[in-house]
Amino acid sequence: MTRNIVLKLAFDGSSFHGWQRQGGGLATVQQVLEEALSEITEGKVTLTGCSRTDAGVHANEFFCNFKTASRIPCDRLPFAINTKTPLSLSVFEAKEAPPGFSARFSSKGKEYLYKIYTGRHKHPFLAGRAWHYPIALSVASMQRAAEYMVGKRDFSAFMATGSLVASPVRNLSGLSVEKEGEMISIRTYADGYLYNMVRILCGTLVYAGNGKLAPEDIPAILESRDRTKAGPTAPPDGLYLNRVDY
Amino acid sequence: MTRNIVLKLAFDGSSFHGWQRQGGGLATVQQVLEEALSEITEGKVTLTGCSRTDAGVHANEFFCNFKTASRIPCDRLPFAINTKTPLSLSVFEAKEAPPGFSARFSSKGKEYLYKIYTGRHKHPFLAGRAWHYPIALSVASMQRAAEYMVGKRDFSAFMATGSLVASPVRNLSGLSVEKEGEMISIRTYADGYLYNMVRILCGTLVYAGNGKLAPEDIPAILESRDRTKAGPTAPPDGLYLNRVDY
Repeated sequence: MTRNIVLKLAFDGSSFHGWQRQGGGLATVQQVLEEALSEITEGKVTLTGCSRTDAGVHANEFFCNFKTASRIPCDRLPFAINTKTPLSLSVFEAKEAPPGFSARFSSKGKEYLYKIYTGRHKHPFLAGRAWHYPIALSVASMQRAAEYMVGKRDFSAFMATGSLVASPVRNLSGLSVEKEGEMISIRTYADGYLYNMVRILCGTLVYAGNGKLAPEDIPAILESRDRTKAGPTAPPDGLYLNRVDY
Repeated sequence: MTRNIVLKLAFDGSSFHGWQRQGGGLATVQQVLEEALSEITEGKVTLTGCSRTDAGVHANEFFCNFKTASRIPCDRLPFAINTKTPLSLSVFEAKEAPPGFSARFSSKGKEYLYKIYTGRHKHPFLAGRAWHYPIALSVASMQRAAEYMVGKRDFSAFMATGSLVASPVRNLSGLSVEKEGEMISIRTYADGYLYNMVRILCGTLVYAGNGKLAPEDIPAILESRDRTKAGPTAPPDGLYLNRVDY
């Protein structure tokens, strides 16, 4: 009998060329996990991931699922996988799910966290794990800009150029900006995101923080539906898929 | 006129073969910094470090000093050095010191932090940055063992075999064990340490925590002056030079 198994994992994205399997021998999370699982289950495993994260993007929480005829107990799977995968990737949990469950399509909402390190000098323990932005940022302006972004809106201006989607409307139900010490944390919550949407939102918030944009410009940027009116795409280093709700 | 310049820095030790310059092309912190400084000051620079950290050991705070005839202003030095060094190393501050100041000999005390991650599975963001120890540890037993270790004592049993020192007596004035979530943090404070002393103290505390030793065994281990009676040398991954007082 075929089982549908869900894995909960985390990974340091700086070691991977993103989630999705690619040609050309590039190490991706999907490829590394599928190879480990195919060995363990003695059958070809194809994974469905909750999201296609880009190269360099991290995950504090990520889910994927696969169908298998293997009888291996779920509580042995994380250990079996973790001995076959690099230290930058860890499977925390494996659970059996109903046949129709999909890590991708059953997700109800996702939280992303974006870290901006504002210290004057580079930080040895944050290399690849935060955007180092040593220029003064007004958190108050970033927060005001964020308020204009929240809601169910057409986010065409915040989507990578050339992306094809059925609808550019997304429900951004949460967007907060907080500063603690020298670290600014941006949290976004939505049922779904357009391609590069979080990174463009964060790049635009930084422009609001450094004065290149006024918070009051946001409504016109949204209305323009024009990618070139928004801020830059923030680097992948600071981005973490932080929570996935089902 | 010769100036005596002190640098305050931090580094991720997993990228380096320790502080001390070595032959054979191994990247050490001293070598990387001396090369950058020799270029910047247009003269040969020799650094004195506050401590000789081993390969894999980290520093949240580390000081070194050097003599130079260069007139470069101190406030420009960190930026100049940081553009020439890897991301795993950062100089935060440069200051002029009195001629007699030595980062090594003027130090009054040092705090080390040792991190033990007790989560069931490896953690992708702690690889190389904590000792992964997924077996149950009694923090109460570790704390009781620590109480027996604190004080001005002969620490021969907690020194790497074969070390040569004028005196094996050190004043361990602070040793605390705390748990927060799945992370155990051990903090040590002393005016000076024997070779591998912190790592052997931590390995012995772990043996007290997992029951291989009783906290009440510590006085006899100290008295034996025999390295084989103490616990193992904890791996370098979890060790951070955390603060240096002058």
